[in-house]
Amino acid sequence: MEGVDHLAHERNKTEFDVDAMKIVWAGSRHAFELSDRMARLVASDPAFRKDDRTRLGRKELFKNTLRKAAHAWKRILELRLTGPCVITEEEAGQLRNFVDEPSFTDLHWGMFVPAIKGQGTDEQQRKWLPLAYKMQIIGCYAQTELGHGSNVQGLETTATFDPETDEFVINSPTLTSSKWWPGGLGKISTHAIVYARLITSGQEHGVHGFIVQIRSLDDHMPLPGITIGDIGMKLGNGAYNTMDNGVLKFDHIRIPRNQMLMRVLQVTREGKCVQSNVPRQLIYGTMVFVRQTIVADASTALSRAVCIATRYSAVRRQFGSQDGGMETQVIDYKTQQSRLFPLLASAYAFRFVGEWLKWLYTDVTQRLQANDFSTLPEAHACTAGLKSLTTAATAVEQRISYDGNLPILSCALSYALGLDYFILDAIEECRKLCGGHGYLCASGLPELFAVYVPACTYEGDNVVLLLQVARFLMKTVSQLGSGKKPVGTTAYLGRVQDLLQCCCDVQRAEDWLKPSVVLEAFEARSARMCVACAQNLSKFEKPEDGFAELSADLVEAAVAHCQLIVVSKFIEKLQQDIPGKGVKQQLQNLCYIYALNLLHKYLGDFLSTGCITPKQASLANDQLRSMYSQIRPNAIALVDAFNYTDHYLGSVLGRSDGNVYPKLYEEAWKDPLNDSVVPDGYHEYVHPMLKQQLRNARL
Amino acid sequence: MEGVDHLAHERNKTEFDVDAMKIVWAGSRHAFELSDRMARLVASDPAFRKDDRTRLGRKELFKNTLRKAAHAWKRILELRLTGPCVITEEEAGQLRNFVDEPSFTDLHWGMFVPAIKGQGTDEQQRKWLPLAYKMQIIGCYAQTELGHGSNVQGLETTATFDPETDEFVINSPTLTSSKWWPGGLGKISTHAIVYARLITSGQEHGVHGFIVQIRSLDDHMPLPGITIGDIGMKLGNGAYNTMDNGVLKFDHIRIPRNQMLMRVLQVTREGKCVQSNVPRQLIYGTMVFVRQTIVADASTALSRAVCIATRYSAVRRQFGSQDGGMETQVIDYKTQQSRLFPLLASAYAFRFVGEWLKWLYTDVTQRLQANDFSTLPEAHACTAGLKSLTTAATAVEQRISYDGNLPILSCALSYALGLDYFILDAIEECRKLCGGHGYLCASGLPELFAVYVPACTYEGDNVVLLLQVARFLMKTVSQLGSGKKPVGTTAYLGRVQDLLQCCCDVQRAEDWLKPSVVLEAFEARSARMCVACAQNLSKFEKPEDGFAELSADLVEAAVAHCQLIVVSKFIEKLQQDIPGKGVKQQLQNLCYIYALNLLHKYLGDFLSTGCITPKQASLANDQLRSMYSQIRPNAIALVDAFNYTDHYLGSVLGRSDGNVYPKLYEEAWKDPLNDSVVPDGYHEYVHPMLKQQLRNARL
Repeated sequence: MEGVDHLAHERNKTEFDVDAMKIVWAGSRHAFELSDRMARLVASDPAFRKDDRTRLGRKELFKNTLRKAAHAWKRILELRLTGPCVITEEEAGQLRNFVDEPSFTDLHWGMFVPAIKGQGTDEQQRKWLPLAYKMQIIGCYAQTELGHGSNVQGLETTATFDPETDEFVINSPTLTSSKWWPGGLGKISTHAIVYARLITSGQEHGVHGFIVQIRSLDDHMPLPGITIGDIGMKLGNGAYNTMDNGVLKFDHIRIPRNQMLMRVLQVTREGKCVQSNVPRQLIYGTMVFVRQTIVADASTALSRAVCIATRYSAVRRQFGSQDGGMETQVIDYKTQQSRLFPLLASAYAFRFVGEWLKWLYTDVTQRLQANDFSTLPEAHACTAGLKSLTTAATAVEQRISYDGNLPILSCALSYALGLDYFILDAIEECRKLCGGHGYLCASGLPELFAVYVPACTYEGDNVVLLLQVARFLMKTVSQLGSGKKPVGTTAYLGRVQDLLQCCCDVQRAEDWLKPSVVLEAFEARSARMCVACAQNLSKFEKPEDGFAELSADLVEAAVAHCQLIVVSKFIEKLQQDIPGKGVKQQLQNLCYIYALNLLHKYLGDFLSTGCITPKQASLANDQLRSMYSQIRPNAIALVDAFNYTDHYLGSVLGRSDGNVYPKLYEEAWKDPLNDSVVPDGYHEYVHPMLKQQLRNARL
Repeated sequence: MEGVDHLAHERNKTEFDVDAMKIVWAGSRHAFELSDRMARLVASDPAFRKDDRTRLGRKELFKNTLRKAAHAWKRILELRLTGPCVITEEEAGQLRNFVDEPSFTDLHWGMFVPAIKGQGTDEQQRKWLPLAYKMQIIGCYAQTELGHGSNVQGLETTATFDPETDEFVINSPTLTSSKWWPGGLGKISTHAIVYARLITSGQEHGVHGFIVQIRSLDDHMPLPGITIGDIGMKLGNGAYNTMDNGVLKFDHIRIPRNQMLMRVLQVTREGKCVQSNVPRQLIYGTMVFVRQTIVADASTALSRAVCIATRYSAVRRQFGSQDGGMETQVIDYKTQQSRLFPLLASAYAFRFVGEWLKWLYTDVTQRLQANDFSTLPEAHACTAGLKSLTTAATAVEQRISYDGNLPILSCALSYALGLDYFILDAIEECRKLCGGHGYLCASGLPELFAVYVPACTYEGDNVVLLLQVARFLMKTVSQLGSGKKPVGTTAYLGRVQDLLQCCCDVQRAEDWLKPSVVLEAFEARSARMCVACAQNLSKFEKPEDGFAELSADLVEAAVAHCQLIVVSKFIEKLQQDIPGKGVKQQLQNLCYIYALNLLHKYLGDFLSTGCITPKQASLANDQLRSMYSQIRPNAIALVDAFNYTDHYLGSVLGRSDGNVYPKLYEEAWKDPLNDSVVPDGYHEYVHPMLKQQLRNARL
């Protein structure tokens, strides 16, 4: 059956132009062609095989990652020499991305280089960037500590200026101040950006970044006074265990003064602190400029899981036959559809909100560089007052210190959107939708889950960020009377009086297919929740007490606001001209599935704020069921449109040709336990038990 | 700081008698003493160390499990010889349980032995049980196939009777008919209960169980015609990879006729099928009799995760200080409390519903054995018409073929209660509540999650079972007019007219502290959802079309019903006499947290059916917040009451003494990557990269 397409009958049902959808998904023809080229290049290179990854022990796994990183670097250099044009940073990044194995290079390119670009002076950039670009040094990003995660201000590492020698003394005063988690630190990096409390003349000046060499460039040994190691196994087989997340302790290490990143704050030869005249906004702008892919990464992770679950749901049959006939495809059960299709719709929804974010930041950045600060409030409406969390430019980096693929501002935004936990839960839901076989590493889902985890488990950061969004919303609501008009994603709050009174006029299920109706329901829900929170807050004498006591409600209001953003950006996308037979129709269906499923899931919000009636909710549910039937014949094509190679998916269950069972069977025999028929330990432990003579049978 | 109790300040706050709560949690003083004794016995035996488990490669891990299984067997035999009394089956089971490592013995004791007891004739029991009790044979339970999970009727393996030789021929006609998943099969078992389609004289007679020897008792080689192996790595480090889940193919294997389990159906020498006169109910009864711990297992898994997350939330500090002072304990944040405390409450709620179930089944079983069938409807109200799914007694075993710890009927019930996915999500939520460090294997949470997964991922079984519950509810509703009075857990449906009209009379937040108010709200919600489903179903011409189309709604009604059961059993527990200072008060608080949190989470249900008003919902939320404050000082003591040893918890974050950071630091150095300072692969792959001369710096 090799070479046969077991999903051909599914693909024949498709009602739209899949190639056109691929372009929509990729964002542009150029983006499609680039990623298609890079994905094939990686998939066709046996050096990048990854199907053995979950079977390897830690050491072997790690060595293998080093090999792949070196090979990827070689391929990038070759492409630069022989390709039709010089390979761009974007192309190199895409290639590394499709290698799909977390490694020290993620941190080097994704955190170390950007931190120097964003926080280093021109002189520092001239010195360090060429070394980093050539990989003559390898850097990581050492912020979080054993006892301290999100709260940058809680860091204990100190950098004390010694005016006698013109040096900083970097020190770890306690065990809990040990740097802990930074990727690439444990075994490979030669340098680190270390965040530490700046102390000059006995005075503290907040937390700042310092470039510290940690290993010898000759023999790779840790420099004197530096203790480094790997922090041990993390969740999952393979997965993030390819990364050397590290621990780092300093015993009074000295570095020259010019290795403090001084773009914002300078320490003079005398040890005085001088603020530079670089506007802080520009620093954000520069960092933002690097890469804005966090939401895109989230939608990628989700879409990979959805692709696997959708294809396997079409392959798998279960129940529904009488005595030996073909059983029913699992994807045909409504219970399966009601769990799977909203995830499919979410993948598209997040893709488009990611696209919008990319545009937003490019726009903001360009304006900032032209000294136009007029749109900053709109960007801040999204980034939710992050500045207040911290000093310098570390605010938005604080939660990303061990995943180098996460860019700067957009990372924070994705948290604000509450995407991360959602994605994690969604990957896990996809695994459950694959039944028992989803538990096998060969399904690819356990590793997808495990790799995505570090994107979102820092000290309930998500909650911290959502609270920031809520604070911003409360501030916006409180200023409504003052004539200050809310803009951007909060513009709807300017119509709060209307939204508090509006009544949804849905009378038949089809009425839910009007964008204005859906949008108004989500706006009214969010506005009413915000106003209710503001009213409850006003009952407290001290606002901070109110924020503490009502924080769970505030988080819910923030979630409502963020969901509105996703729904409204999906609807905006549909206003665009979208070529290709049937493509727009499918996207409309997905948009309504996304919105109406949220309405069903958060029905309590909608009903308790009186946005809609129970009857209208029931009609929405009817409409949702009918959308599932419309999506059903297109489901396989909609995941084909992601254009993922089998190599990238890395899943026997998600194979493009649907040839699941023979390949599962084949995979099984590769397990080390199958190296011998009789397992190690049988003769010592099992055989004696079987041959033991017991006086009394019953125990 | 070794020996210091870092949580002493927490324990000093406790407002109740922890020792008395330990007895309540355990169920009785006897149960407490037994489990306490066994837990300490295992914890104090270095042979049962498990802290290295996540670092071992598959082969080493598996060999280690064989060693522990042999050692556990040895200890059990010793106890039998030297203990104060003969060790009971319960005590042996507890010992194995505290070893806390999935192994072939789980299947042997938990599935193989019970299947022979339940489905074997007296003669078969006399022959096979002594061998199994002495472990002179080791058995597993081979039901699911590569292409077939839940649907027993879809199995393809055949057992064809050959009257000439008086044998059955067991055969795997296709690749998808390969047995797939059975624990203990891959490498260790000598025998298997194999489920196959019985064929005599060319006629099919449904699926039945057969005792098949699969390996030689001399050299452990697979018998001729049998292909066996391990199916490969499963999700997680350590975790279920200690189990040899297997694949098994038969090429026309012959077994004597008397190795078909013939308690229900007998095949005569001539190949005729004869139903025995053993009532099928009794078979259920016998199997039920074995162990009824599935819900207890679920509450145990949850409580372990909650214990870790609660203790660590008290140790961890984050934010909330100005410039260098002590940060705030994470457990003091309302957002943390609103996620953590409902899980703590759930652990207790499930514990008590499990206790009730145990009583229910003991009661039903005793009555059945006395030919009293009068309470069977009540038991069936819970088991939800499982009989309809299948033939013989395989119905309730079908979803448990790779976890031997799962007993028979109660397993099905736990699915019907929708517990499993909840527990899985709850363990994952606990991991998230531990922030970044929860991602380390040393936290114990990844393994807890991974080990619990197989309890619940078979083909969306949960959904299948919930649909069965829904069918039962629809039947009950449809019979309401007929004078047939619903009993047991569905008795409230007899008051459906009242429940459709009742109005909740809560006017102040404290009104939510009346058990009758809470109970009525949950009854009204469930009754109204059931009636609404029944009405919608009646609109369909063919009932089956309705069931298919409305299945998602039906599942929601079933969930509402199951949540009512849990709430009502918790409330019933509180009616009992509960000794110990403050113990009952704590349980009351937990009960209201459990119920009011559900009310908040499923607010859409309550509001759309008009059970309560938005204002009342908001009051419930206020009351919930106030309960969190009341539970807070007792949180640590409430998890101490689980009485888990540090060995059993297996978590650095959940350490009883709260000494988290030094131990995390210590653990890190044990990773194999730290065996050498410069990692394997550095010289081949990293050094050349660092020393490469590149013409053009910028790529």
